[in-house]
Order: sequence, then C-alpha cells, then structure tokens
Amino acid sequence: MKSLTPLASLDAILSLDLPVPDIGSMDAARARQASLTKPPGSLGRLEDLAVFMAGWRGTARPRIDRAQALVFAGNHGICAQGVNPYPQAVTALMVRNFAAGGAAINQLCRVADAALSVVALDLDRPTADFTQAPAMTEADCLAALNRGLASVDPTADVLILGEMGIGNSTVSAALAHAICGGAPGDRIGRGTGSDAAGLARKADVVARGVALHAGLDPLRLLAALGGREQAAICGAVLAARAARIPVLLDGYICTAAVAPLHGANPALLDHCLIAHQSAEPGHARLCAAMARQPILSLGMALGEGTGAALALMVLRGALACHDGMATFAEAGIG
Amino acid sequence: MKSLTPLASLDAILSLDLPVPDIGSMDAARARQASLTKPPGSLGRLEDLAVFMAGWRGTARPRIDRAQALVFAGNHGICAQGVNPYPQAVTALMVRNFAAGGAAINQLCRVADAALSVVALDLDRPTADFTQAPAMTEADCLAALNRGLASVDPTADVLILGEMGIGNSTVSAALAHAICGGAPGDRIGRGTGSDAAGLARKADVVARGVALHAGLDPLRLLAALGGREQAAICGAVLAARAARIPVLLDGYICTAAVAPLHGANPALLDHCLIAHQSAEPGHARLCAAMARQPILSLGMALGEGTGAALALMVLRGALACHDGMATFAEAGIG
Repeated sequence: MKSLTPLASLDAILSLDLPVPDIGSMDAARARQASLTKPPGSLGRLEDLAVFMAGWRGTARPRIDRAQALVFAGNHGICAQGVNPYPQAVTALMVRNFAAGGAAINQLCRVADAALSVVALDLDRPTADFTQAPAMTEADCLAALNRGLASVDPTADVLILGEMGIGNSTVSAALAHAICGGAPGDRIGRGTGSDAAGLARKADVVARGVALHAGLDPLRLLAALGGREQAAICGAVLAARAARIPVLLDGYICTAAVAPLHGANPALLDHCLIAHQSAEPGHARLCAAMARQPILSLGMALGEGTGAALALMVLRGALACHDGMATFAEAGIG
Repeated sequence: MKSLTPLASLDAILSLDLPVPDIGSMDAARARQASLTKPPGSLGRLEDLAVFMAGWRGTARPRIDRAQALVFAGNHGICAQGVNPYPQAVTALMVRNFAAGGAAINQLCRVADAALSVVALDLDRPTADFTQAPAMTEADCLAALNRGLASVDPTADVLILGEMGIGNSTVSAALAHAICGGAPGDRIGRGTGSDAAGLARKADVVARGVALHAGLDPLRLLAALGGREQAAICGAVLAARAARIPVLLDGYICTAAVAPLHGANPALLDHCLIAHQSAEPGHARLCAAMARQPILSLGMALGEGTGAALALMVLRGALACHDGMATFAEAGIG
C-alpha cells in the first residue's frame, strides 16, 4: 500500500507513476469464476466486479475487510446567480447532520459496513462565481485536491466517494459540458429541487461559465469551474490509485468531479466504477461520454455517496460469491 | 400473522380472503419520507420500497428482523426434448451444493442476512413432457403448491424466492407465452448455456406445448406447462400474502412461475416485487406485460434467488434510511 505525497502542482498529476491492474490476478480470478458451480457468465456484472477487484488488489481472491467512505463538502460562489432554491447555509447544516448520524449516507454506511468520514472544505469561504472569474486559483484547487488526497486510508480495500454542496449540480453541469461537450441544456437537471425558471437560469449560468473559461486544459477547468469538493474527490481518486484501492464514485456530481481527470488522461480512472445512474439527466450522457456503465439505477439523485454505499453491498455480494462458492470439482458436478 | 391452511383445489385460490395494504401506514410513511433530511424524492426507488413495506407490514416504520429465503427445486419431463445441455441429475447435485453451502445463493444470503431453506420437490419423479401431456395433474400441482405454502415462515418480515431446475427456462418461456401472449421466440433465451440449435429446439418445444394446452385457464396452465417448483412458488406467494409478508421474486423463472396468478387475478401479486431483470430476453417482455419494473439489472441469469438476495440488501438500505434518518426539524434545517 503506497501513500501518495501531496502534489506540488496540478500538472504533477500528468507525470504520476501509477499502478496498473495485475493481469495475472485477473486471469486467475477469471479461471476461478469459470470453475464455480454456475453456468459461465450467469452472475453477470458480479463476475466482472470480482475480476476488477482481483486486478487492483493484486490477488485472485480479493476481500473487503475495510471499506472507507469519504464525503467532501464545499460551497460555491455560483449560488449568487440564484441557481438553487436552498440557501448555502444548508451545506454546513448537512455536515452537522452527517456528524450526528442523521443523514441517508450514515444509515447506508451502517448497512454496507463502511467507515464514514466527512471532510468540510472551507465552507465559510465559497469559491468565486465562475461566470465572473475562475472559481478557484490553481493554488486553492491544489490545496483542496491535496486535502482529498490526504483523507484516503491507504489500508482500505475499497473507497466510496460522495459529496455535499448546495449549488454543485450546476458546477457539475459546467464541468461536464466544458470537458465532454454537447449542448449546455443537455447537462442540466433539477438538482436539489429547482423549478422550470431555475432550470433556465442554470442553463444560462452554465453556458456563460463555460464560454468564459473556454480553451483551458481539463485540469485548469477543474479550478475554473469546479469547487473544493470536486478537487478533493480528484485527490482522493489519485491517492486510492496509488494504493491500488478501487473506487466507487457515487453519481452525477462525483462523475463530473473526475471528468477533468478523464479529460487529462482517461487511464487515471481505470480503478474507478460509477456506482449509480443518477436521475439527473446529464449523468447518462456523461457516463456515455466516459464509456462507463453505472452499477445501479434506482432513480436516486441525493448524492452524499448514497449510490456508492448501495453499490458496495453489490460488490460485497460479488466477492462473497467469488470467494465462497464451491467449484464444480468440489461439488462433484460435471 | 395469519397462516394459510393448505388449499383443497386450484380454484380455491380465486376465493381466498387476502389482506390488502394498510393505507394509513403508507400515508404515514410518505409523510415521514417528506420530513427527512433530503430533497423530496431524491432517494428514488428506496422511498417507494419503504412505503410499500409500510403498507404490507402495517406500520409507518417497518423493520426487517427476519428475512426468509426459499429455494424450490424440481425436475422437468420436457428435458426429454433435448432443450438443455446439462443432464437433469444436476438439479439434485445443486440441491446438495445448497445444503453444503457452496452455491451462489448461500454466499448472498449470508451477506444479505437471510435464513435460507431449500425445498426439493420429488426430484426423482420429473413432471411429464408438456408437448405430450399435461406436465402435472391438478392433484400433483396442488400438492406442490401446498408444499410451497407450508414452507413460509409466518414470522418473517420479508420473503425472497428462488428456484433451481434443469430445463425450467423452457418451462418459463411456455408459461409466459401461454399466459401473456406474444411470439414464442420472444420468450426464449439461452437459459443454462443453450447454443443456437438448442434455442431453435426450445422455441419449437414451447410452441408445441402452448398449442397442445391452448384454451386452459391460467391456473390449469400452471399444471399443464409448469413444474413443481413453479407451483410451490405460487403457494409460497399466497402464504406470504396471508401473513402480510412482502415477497422479492428473483428473476425470469420466478416471474413466469407466478404469471398464472397474474392471469387469474393480478391483485394476487400486489405484495410482490421483481428483484432482478434477468439477462434472459423473455424477462423484460414478461415484466412489461405484468406492468412491473425490476429493482436491479446486473446482467445475471443464474436463478437460485440470487437477484432477490441482492435486492434484499437494497431493501435493507431503504428501510435503514426511512427509519434512521433525521427529520428537517430534528436537524434544525429549514
């Protein structure tokens, strides 16, 4: 388990020496799947998940002894544009709710057996309004990224990521649109309860923000359009990679948060799975652009890591089958 | 918790006095959902599941203290038509594998915390070949149905159902086609590893069986085309209903097994959810015909109750959120 030291610049991401999946373990896991008491392929996605875990953990029979859940929270200057019906103060109130164990993610982490930590990122210091200026300086973005990087437990077997931040579905639409293209309206959903007028405002804000920062490379777009929780998610993803820890990205906001990494080098996300297809319409388009198929689709759009916690249960089921099933030979079949 | 006594005839199903959901508990559950610290509707299907459970369990905050898993196994005379690449003896070998804890369902029940029982139904006495005669006499069908009925633990809070039976994807295609219509080829999939020639043989067998027994009412079609595990599943579904126990039906085979109940009276299945959208192509069509949306879609086609066990985890997550989350008032938000 290798820990990543803090990065000195955003461009340092491009020259990280990162591990790749262990092909031998994947082959051994595939051979084991083929020997188990079931028709070949009949466990569908569960078989793929077991082989994926084998590759990253470097063992033919991977286990999840420790699952870490990280929820990053940030506040966004873009809220000044009236894109959200909830006041920004709700972000801090929800962080308090996480600490008190009262949020959805608390319940789901208990059921899925994940150790939850919440990292609030300078909530009293929102980013700048990205229609007027870059949301973050490069130094600010790097600091948040390094907070995320330092939050990862290098002894975890899997990491689930979530977020909370009033206004961050607008931020996500801007990141997705700037990095993966398409029409700005394609990326917009109701987020936390916007009405039709709110939707139109969001589309306008996204179009103006993307136009203002056009031409930047993907990592600079993270600083120009993203928030601190997006940068922290990128940092956590990189730290997990260094430690060969597979990552379950929650939904739309988390997927958009790592779109800059995808834009910089898609292979940076090879150890990541998208947990849940968000009800936000922009998410399906973003997943398609990133050639990803979420594990679950339950009509959720809450964030916090809730979809990732549910997908962790599926992953636990996949590994339990992979490790615990009898082979045809053991069962005296065939 | 009311136990159902054995039925004296298949037609007795039509005059059972069965409970309906408790509207007051559902309304109270909806009101609670609206008060929890999340945007309305943002937990998607999880909210629906909590309200559904509230209605059947008759309480605004339902719990799952006991989850029962039942796997029914049967053998099928239709195998004489060469519809399956595996020999029928595999059914009994898999039952032994269940008993030894080596099958996929054993691992998933452990992860999902369900108490598993396997009921083998006269494996040494396959049903008749339905292209030649009714698969079961009405008395035979009723006996299997009553075995299923008697297998339900009336103190369970939820029941997950699965099956094992070499040849039963062909049986399911016949039941689905006879009861819900469409072209026979629409109902056919590869089942446990059939090749192209096997698929053509299955389609022919299904067409001949459905033609031979055309004109029967849905409950007689269960006897004419179904197997003992299908009849037992129907019995378990009815016993669960009498005890107000919601049911998670696994996938294609379980859905087809209860198609006769749907054909007789769709309301008989109001307490049932379909857990997993099978990779067998006939399943999506059957779910559409029965106006059902499975909870999960993971590309599985194993049976045994594996999809239902995974859906049980989602259901546990739904109830944990419903019961454990803070309200806006408790969290001091809004």
